[in-house]
Amino acid sequence: MAPHGDKSDAAEETMVAEAEKRPISTILIVMAMQSEALPVVNKLNLSEDLESVFPKGVPWVRYRGFYKDLNINLVWPGKDSSLGVDCVGTVPASLVTYASIQALQPDLIINAGTAGGLKAKGACIGDAYVASDVAFCDRRIPIPVFDLYGLGLRQAFSTPNLQKELNLKVGKLSTGDSLHMSTQDEASMVANDAVVKDMEAAAVAYVADLLKVPSVFLKVVIDIKDGEETTAEESSQSFAALERAVTQVIDFINGKCLSDL
Amino acid sequence: MAPHGDKSDAAEETMVAEAEKRPISTILIVMAMQSEALPVVNKLNLSEDLESVFPKGVPWVRYRGFYKDLNINLVWPGKDSSLGVDCVGTVPASLVTYASIQALQPDLIINAGTAGGLKAKGACIGDAYVASDVAFCDRRIPIPVFDLYGLGLRQAFSTPNLQKELNLKVGKLSTGDSLHMSTQDEASMVANDAVVKDMEAAAVAYVADLLKVPSVFLKVVIDIKDGEETTAEESSQSFAALERAVTQVIDFINGKCLSDL
Repeated sequence: MAPHGDKSDAAEETMVAEAEKRPISTILIVMAMQSEALPVVNKLNLSEDLESVFPKGVPWVRYRGFYKDLNINLVWPGKDSSLGVDCVGTVPASLVTYASIQALQPDLIINAGTAGGLKAKGACIGDAYVASDVAFCDRRIPIPVFDLYGLGLRQAFSTPNLQKELNLKVGKLSTGDSLHMSTQDEASMVANDAVVKDMEAAAVAYVADLLKVPSVFLKVVIDIKDGEETTAEESSQSFAALERAVTQVIDFINGKCLSDL
Repeated sequence: MAPHGDKSDAAEETMVAEAEKRPISTILIVMAMQSEALPVVNKLNLSEDLESVFPKGVPWVRYRGFYKDLNINLVWPGKDSSLGVDCVGTVPASLVTYASIQALQPDLIINAGTAGGLKAKGACIGDAYVASDVAFCDRRIPIPVFDLYGLGLRQAFSTPNLQKELNLKVGKLSTGDSLHMSTQDEASMVANDAVVKDMEAAAVAYVADLLKVPSVFLKVVIDIKDGEETTAEESSQSFAALERAVTQVIDFINGKCLSDL
């Protein structure tokens, strides 16, 4: 219902097709927690942007830098100004993704982070997954069509070469704002046939889809939803595995076009 | 962690205090559904903004107009472009609130809509409530401090004169993305001591708080969570009651300062 400028859909499709054949230049990495972000910031030698592209008062943080041929921007929603904890979950992730797309016009979004995994579906701690598609597991609106809207199923950008080259696991991802899922959330995750569960991806996908930015979802399993509790050592190893996975993906992307992924 | 410009906190507090003594001029009404918005649009004689202040491609809709001495902007997140249903819930509400604040710099936000009510707490269909505070009921993160972050409790802007003059009910509001709450969501709503439950308010409050815009939450009970199903006639009456409540609030605000509310 909003006006759509003066470009026809056909012209837009041509632009998208052309963009897929140009080398990827600007990357937006969206992460939810400082402990996930900092190892990547250090590895890629990024620096905090002190001239914020975000409005005054928001805690959102952007790290930036050039890595090989890529203009890398890593954003996270920062710490809650009253409580001091990471602003995890769908609402801050959607806002920082929206504001970053507006400010930076990225060619590609990588939403990367740790996630829970289902042992029954083959997930092990430290596994790096690329999501084939993402959906919400905690938005139940049992009215025809609204039920599908609540589910919010979206396909990730297709990356067959990346998956094969880096030997990444591929699976469906469910997103919910609770760390501890309700029985209904778990049932929804099973109905989604999901193997990993995070707290942001489906919201990032929603915004990326609204603004037509290709997006991929890279999640490293840090705990097993249907198994033992994670040890401190396993957590630490998962953050290291996440850094390695992000770096491998960035190295693979460098010099390639979207259609090469 | 974002830079905070060159104004000290003291200077900012002075500016806020001065703003509270100036007549309210620009109002942002945030609603979630077309069926909630259109009666208000018609009553206040607003027109759809065809030169959108929002980015290309988003379905967000803004209606605008002058009503008495007020510059009124009513926004709703529009219809899902694939599914055709209203974009209800926290993520679209937070995005459209964020983008509207950035574009319009409102003096006051009114998040208005229909909601569920608890009979056990005194709610009846058609009752208009002003929320004293809002919180999420579906973000369970059982880690110290993260639990409070998940709850996201925020006080609404204080409006004692408005409440008294218009004889509005006052109560606590819980927000969750599911129309049908899980047992855990219900327990959280009870723990919050909430009387009404909607799908957007706590997210609107989060954004308004980030960007320091005073916000009030006006909710008309359309169904009873612990009672009989709503009839079509009762639904229709609730939408009419919502339009009357919004109009009464706007009439009350006209010519007043924030500190008069």
